This record gives sequence, C-alpha cells and structure tokens, in this order.
Amino acid sequence: MILGKVVGTVVSTVKADDLAGARYLLVDKSSQRGEIKGDYLVALDLIGANRNELVMISESTSARETPLTVSKPIDAIIVGIIDVIDENDKIVYKK
Amino acid sequence: MILGKVVGTVVSTVKADDLAGARYLLVDKSSQRGEIKGDYLVALDLIGANRNELVMISESTSARETPLTVSKPIDAIIVGIIDVIDENDKIVYKK
Amino acid sequence: MILGKVVGTVVSTVKADDLAGARYLLVDKSSQRGEIKGDYLVALDLIGANRNELVMISESTSARETPLTVSKPIDAIIVGIIDVIDENDKIVYKK
Amino acid sequence: MILGKVVGTVVSTVKADDLAGARYLLVDKSSQRGEIKGDYLVALDLIGANRNELVMISESTSARETPLTVSKPIDAIIVGIIDVIDENDKIVYKK
Amino acid sequence: MILGKVVGTVVSTVKADDLAGARYLLVDKSSQRGEIKGDYLVALDLIGANRNELVMISESTSARETPLTVSKPIDAIIVGIIDVIDENDKIVYKK
Repeated sequence: MILGKVVGTVVSTVKADDLAGARYLLVDKSSQRGEIKGDYLVALDLIGANRNELVMISESTSARETPLTVSKPIDAIIVGIIDVIDENDKIVYKK
Repeated sequence: MILGKVVGTVVSTVKADDLAGARYLLVDKSSQRGEIKGDYLVALDLIGANRNELVMISESTSARETPLTVSKPIDAIIVGIIDVIDENDKIVYKK
Repeated sequence: MILGKVVGTVVSTVKADDLAGARYLLVDKSSQRGEIKGDYLVALDLIGANRNELVMISESTSARETPLTVSKPIDAIIVGIIDVIDENDKIVYKK
Repeated sequence: MILGKVVGTVVSTVKADDLAGARYLLVDKSSQRGEIKGDYLVALDLIGANRNELVMISESTSARETPLTVSKPIDAIIVGIIDVIDENDKIVYKK
Repeated sequence: MILGKVVGTVVSTVKADDLAGARYLLVDKSSQRGEIKGDYLVALDLIGANRNELVMISESTSARETPLTVSKPIDAIIVGIIDVIDENDKIVYKK
C-alpha cells in the first residue's frame, strides 16, 4: 500500500452506473513522515477519512475486494487512517 | 483513479473480437486543476464523455468490472466526468 | 490501453506449457502521433498485426480476458490495430 | 517480486473492516545487495519479518492469494525473508 | 511481457506457506538486444531458465495463471526463454 494525505474531494455526477453513491477523495501521495509529494490520485473512501489525515491506499485490482467495491471499476481505495509510523525505532509520523 | 482530459478519439476496425462496438477516447493525463500533462492513454468510454471534459479513469484489472466490460481485455475505462474538485477548501477545478 | 508500433518478432521455444502456439511481437511504445519512444515490450498478438502498424495494447490482468488467453500467464496483448487518431479535431495519425 | 528492507511499523486503528487484525510493516525498497533506496511502501506481513531483514514483496492483485488475504484489499504482501542472493556466482547478499 | 537476463538466484527459507518449493531467480531487465539495464526483480521460474539466458517475464496478476502458481502470491513469472528477436527484419538478439 502507499501513503497519502487527504487534501480534498472530487465531485462527479455522470458516472459509470455501478459507482452511484461512492465518495471520492483527492489524495496527495506522502512520505513515511507524512510530507506531501505533489503527486495526486483519486481514491474511494469507505472509512470516513478527513482532510489532512494520512491514509494507506490499496491500488490496482485489490481495491475491489470489499463488500462495497466488489464488481465496481475502482483501482484505488483508502484502507486505513494512519495513527503512528515508526522507522528505525523512532516515531516519524503521529496523527 | 487518475485524472485526464478527453482530447480526441481512436478508431480501430481490426480488433480482438470481444471489443466489437466499444468506443475509445484519447485522454491526456491531467493535474487536479485540469491542466494536461502531455502523457496520453487510450480509455474505453461508457458514459458519453466529450472532448475537453475532465474525467476519472480506472486502470488495471478494475476496468473490467462493469456489465459491458466483464471478460473484455480492457485496462483503462472512464468511470466519471468530473464536475468539481476542491483542494484545501478551495475549488481548483470546475467544469 | 497504451499505443505502440509493431517493430519485430520474438521467438521462444522453451515456454511455460500453457503458452504453446502463441505468437509474440516486439512492440515499441508510441505517441498518439505514432512516433516510437524506444521503450519496448513483448505482446501477444491475436489479430494478425504486422510490422509498422500502430496498435493498442492492454496490459496487466486484463490481457487474459479473451477465449485464447484465459488462464495463460500473459500481461500484454494487442487488442486493436489503429486506423485513425484525432486530437483536438485534427487527424494526428492515419494508417 | 521486488526486494525491500523492513525499517518500521505502521499503526492504523480505523481501517476498512476486512483488514482487522492485520500487521503492517514499513518497507524501504532495496537493491539485490540489500542497499535501501529511500523508496517506501507499506506491506502486509504474514511470516513474522523483523526490522533490518531483507524481504521479497509481491505487489498488485497477487497479494490477495493466501488464506489470510483472500478478499481483502491488500496490494503488497511480504512473501519471503531472504537468506542469500547470488549474482553472477558471487554472493551479493547474506542475512 | 518484459525482457530480462537471468543473473542469479534468491534463497528464502521463511516464506508464506503457499510458496514452499518454488525456485526464484534474480533477473536484470534487458533491452530487446539482451543488454542488461541494472534494474532487478525476483521472478518465479517454472521452465528451468539458466544464468545468462534472456527470458520473457509476465508481471502482475497474470503470473498466477499456471497450474503451479494458481492461488500463490506471485507477481512475476518467467514464461519463456528467448531464442531470437528480430527488429525491423534484422536479428538483434540470438541465444
């Protein structure tokens, strides 16, 4: 999974039918310290992530593997909100 | 999903059989502000996207997961036409 | 899908069993104008593409989704021979 | 598969439901000699990898294919702890 | 598929269970002429490839689609040993 910071929302009314009701967030890929990289993607949010939260994103086909996403054309899904990251026994990110 | 602007069409008469009848668009990958990057791909359009519209594209296997695309060798599909993108509570793209 | 120009063939006699009989082409990735990039891949050809033709290639798992490729370890397949590409209402490639 | 060194852990309490109980490690991609590249990802650990161990990581959909990960939105999984790598008949990495 | 040269082996005794018995090779990605790029990956070998042989590698989910790899977390598999590559009617690689 990759790390990213939630920076905004994406609104789309004309969608492939199966996507009705989904919520999309604008995410900026981030380092393990939570520093944004200016490299954006759009991810489906299933867990209520908020702006400025650091999240884990599953890309590719794996993104379909939840009750809500099975059989939907989704290739990026937010799978967790990060609380803490430690690197070499030092905390490098804390929510 | 990634963002891209519809810039043209791709016509192919000799195709793998399962693809008969599909409509392909030329898409230029774009920033969250709708600025094109000069990085092109060909995507299947299921929702009637038009030239100059900013769209969300699902890549990889996920692209097969609609009634029309199941069992077709498609790896990029337009899944939504973007109306509005906000970043840090400012609207950075509006249709 | 990505665009590429057929530039040659790849011959392999020792193969994973399921691949017996398949035809592989050497493809150079190309711009929307058909200009080659010097970035090569090997793709399975199901539709009789010839050298110098511009083709659409489906990558990743989607490549398996034809009667011939189901259950074969293929990750790149030629899915269409391009006739015409228009960009901003101008024809930028014609076969 | 790619090579990476385990450099830390990632803690997430709010997760997509299917991921409850999983253990995530921070991994820094590495060369065949075990040298880190400063290019991080988060991977699910099923085999008890420890900090400073060099591991093989399977990315993309393949990551789902274990009893624990079937139907979970995982796109990176640690599939082996590396003992030895030889290159051109010389040992370039040893645990 | 991508091209790579077999340059060594990878030994791992602690593995995700489903991988027991598999043989892993260190592969250096190569040009269509067989020139190595210094860009390494680890691939499962099902066909007895040897050091210095140029091989075709299937990446991503497709790698699972052989009797041996079904349901295993593999994302790179050697699917053929290359005998000859021709480019623009000239032989650019010969085993």
